[in-house]
Amino acid sequence: MTAHWAAPDLPEQDPALGLALRQAIDGKAKPPGSLGRLEDLAIRIGLIQGRPDPRIGPATVLVFAGDHGMNAEGVSAYPSAVTAAMIGMFLAGRATVSAFAAASDVQVRVIDAGVAADFPGSDALIDAKLGRGTRNAAREPAMTSEECARALDRGFAIAQQTAHDGADAIALGDMGIGNTASASLLLHRLGPAPLDACIGPGAGHTADGLARKAEVLHRAAARTATTEPFEALRQFGGYEIAMLAGAALGAASLRRPVVVDGFIASAAVLAAIRLQPKLADFCIFAHRSAERGHRLLLELLGAEPLLDLGLRLGEGTGAVLAIPLLRAAARLVTDVADLAEVLG
Amino acid sequence: MTAHWAAPDLPEQDPALGLALRQAIDGKAKPPGSLGRLEDLAIRIGLIQGRPDPRIGPATVLVFAGDHGMNAEGVSAYPSAVTAAMIGMFLAGRATVSAFAAASDVQVRVIDAGVAADFPGSDALIDAKLGRGTRNAAREPAMTSEECARALDRGFAIAQQTAHDGADAIALGDMGIGNTASASLLLHRLGPAPLDACIGPGAGHTADGLARKAEVLHRAAARTATTEPFEALRQFGGYEIAMLAGAALGAASLRRPVVVDGFIASAAVLAAIRLQPKLADFCIFAHRSAERGHRLLLELLGAEPLLDLGLRLGEGTGAVLAIPLLRAAARLVTDVADLAEVLG
Repeated sequence: MTAHWAAPDLPEQDPALGLALRQAIDGKAKPPGSLGRLEDLAIRIGLIQGRPDPRIGPATVLVFAGDHGMNAEGVSAYPSAVTAAMIGMFLAGRATVSAFAAASDVQVRVIDAGVAADFPGSDALIDAKLGRGTRNAAREPAMTSEECARALDRGFAIAQQTAHDGADAIALGDMGIGNTASASLLLHRLGPAPLDACIGPGAGHTADGLARKAEVLHRAAARTATTEPFEALRQFGGYEIAMLAGAALGAASLRRPVVVDGFIASAAVLAAIRLQPKLADFCIFAHRSAERGHRLLLELLGAEPLLDLGLRLGEGTGAVLAIPLLRAAARLVTDVADLAEVLG
Repeated sequence: MTAHWAAPDLPEQDPALGLALRQAIDGKAKPPGSLGRLEDLAIRIGLIQGRPDPRIGPATVLVFAGDHGMNAEGVSAYPSAVTAAMIGMFLAGRATVSAFAAASDVQVRVIDAGVAADFPGSDALIDAKLGRGTRNAAREPAMTSEECARALDRGFAIAQQTAHDGADAIALGDMGIGNTASASLLLHRLGPAPLDACIGPGAGHTADGLARKAEVLHRAAARTATTEPFEALRQFGGYEIAMLAGAALGAASLRRPVVVDGFIASAAVLAAIRLQPKLADFCIFAHRSAERGHRLLLELLGAEPLLDLGLRLGEGTGAVLAIPLLRAAARLVTDVADLAEVLG
């Protein structure tokens, strides 16, 4: 059993390169600063990639899916079976993330991190199943230490493979009925933040449902006082969240921008940043989710997301929408003429 | 001489179709409302296109360029010659809008609405030159009534041709040194809004430069008390702004979403909306510019833009960045499975 997972070191980012990128952008045929946050984004991408000519061509969204034992307590308005049904939609290319990815020329890869159902073999589905749903985190740790370490390792390897396969940027998304419950507990302990401020309606809840969810989460939180990131992942789950945390580290290890979707992916990245603080410099937060807790999480990380469109679906939908902004920002550095050329 | 240009009528939008689109989106395999503003955008596109299956494939950004006689008064920190130089960059595919358009698969068309320079013939440049820069609006009307009417007509025809050539959405951008001065005067009279609240640094100004710009604009405003949109366009210019106003109407007339860039394009659209209020329902405001006045203009129109990235370049850059969001929104309606299918 691995008590604590040792997060890998990450590449250094070169401040001199950052200055060179800023100078290059300031010299472009446009008023200085006139591209606003796209300029900062371009510099960010260059620093992550470690190159003066940042480039975002092919991009992949990794959608990690898992089920949650805690869902037996009624933390979601939806039954766990919806997780498996949505995997079917991903594989058929008929989920929202599929549609958005097609619109933005992003590849979708779906990972079964621990769904409580079996799937026929498919090129579009990576089988990394660690179990048929986590244990019920309201009563016991969601995972064993070994499972949690394996989830991190598998996520890390899957992201590295995705980079090797040619993705210049890796977007992170999730599917898992009940997983806002886990994300709320992780934010509570690793933010840290008061638990009640971390709890929202998720996919949808009546006032009664939300009150029940809060009661369950207070019970889960009362089981353990941990504020240690590996232990928090193990205690609160889920498989897909731990795998997402590993994937963020894996993408960063190969200098791929980590494009973070909404509340779940951000909670996973929060855990990964607590494991390895250098990860923060490799993350680009795509959007501000309408799910309560996400705004707070972003504030705690000092992150200003690119989009603010009231999304709260997950699946990587918001991350996919941000990919064209990364592509445009990179091209600002490589494709735009210098002012000196314009002035002759 | 045309005293007032008669804005054409525009197609009706069918409220029953709006309800059908809302129902279709609510029935998709996702929690109701979970795509936030993308859902409203999808409905908007369907209503504009008049179809239950909205579709944004090919898209074109029209960049209208013109020079401004008022620039002789020092309203810009840049000389008018930069307008022509930037046309060269557009034609060479090396301007920022070229880079962003390449990143998002958007076609760029450049229109010489009245630049104070001549250009060799090029397939990429539409020659609609009405003069070599407008007259100096600080001292006299920027255009004759005939010129202003021709600008509106030419813009209308160019947008219609762009639609006939296959563009599913038409983005509007501008290039014209000194044109924030014209835009400020248009916002002042057509918003209406206090002139000082409409004036910002444009491409860049020192405090002295900004004070001089304000002094010139107060002089220009003092020449006429008009609040009539055609007369305001004629008085304050420029050629490219009047042509943009016509283009907005031309795109809407053929049910193409009008994707509006920053302060200049929005001021043109404001004038066009004052000519034909139904135009507002065909406009999608792409982003909130950092240029002072744009926020106010958007508020006056009750418009909430899609992006807020601190851009203030023009050229259609912000509009181009929004096109992938339109494409994604449309695909939400056409490509995503119904919840009923998922639940089996």
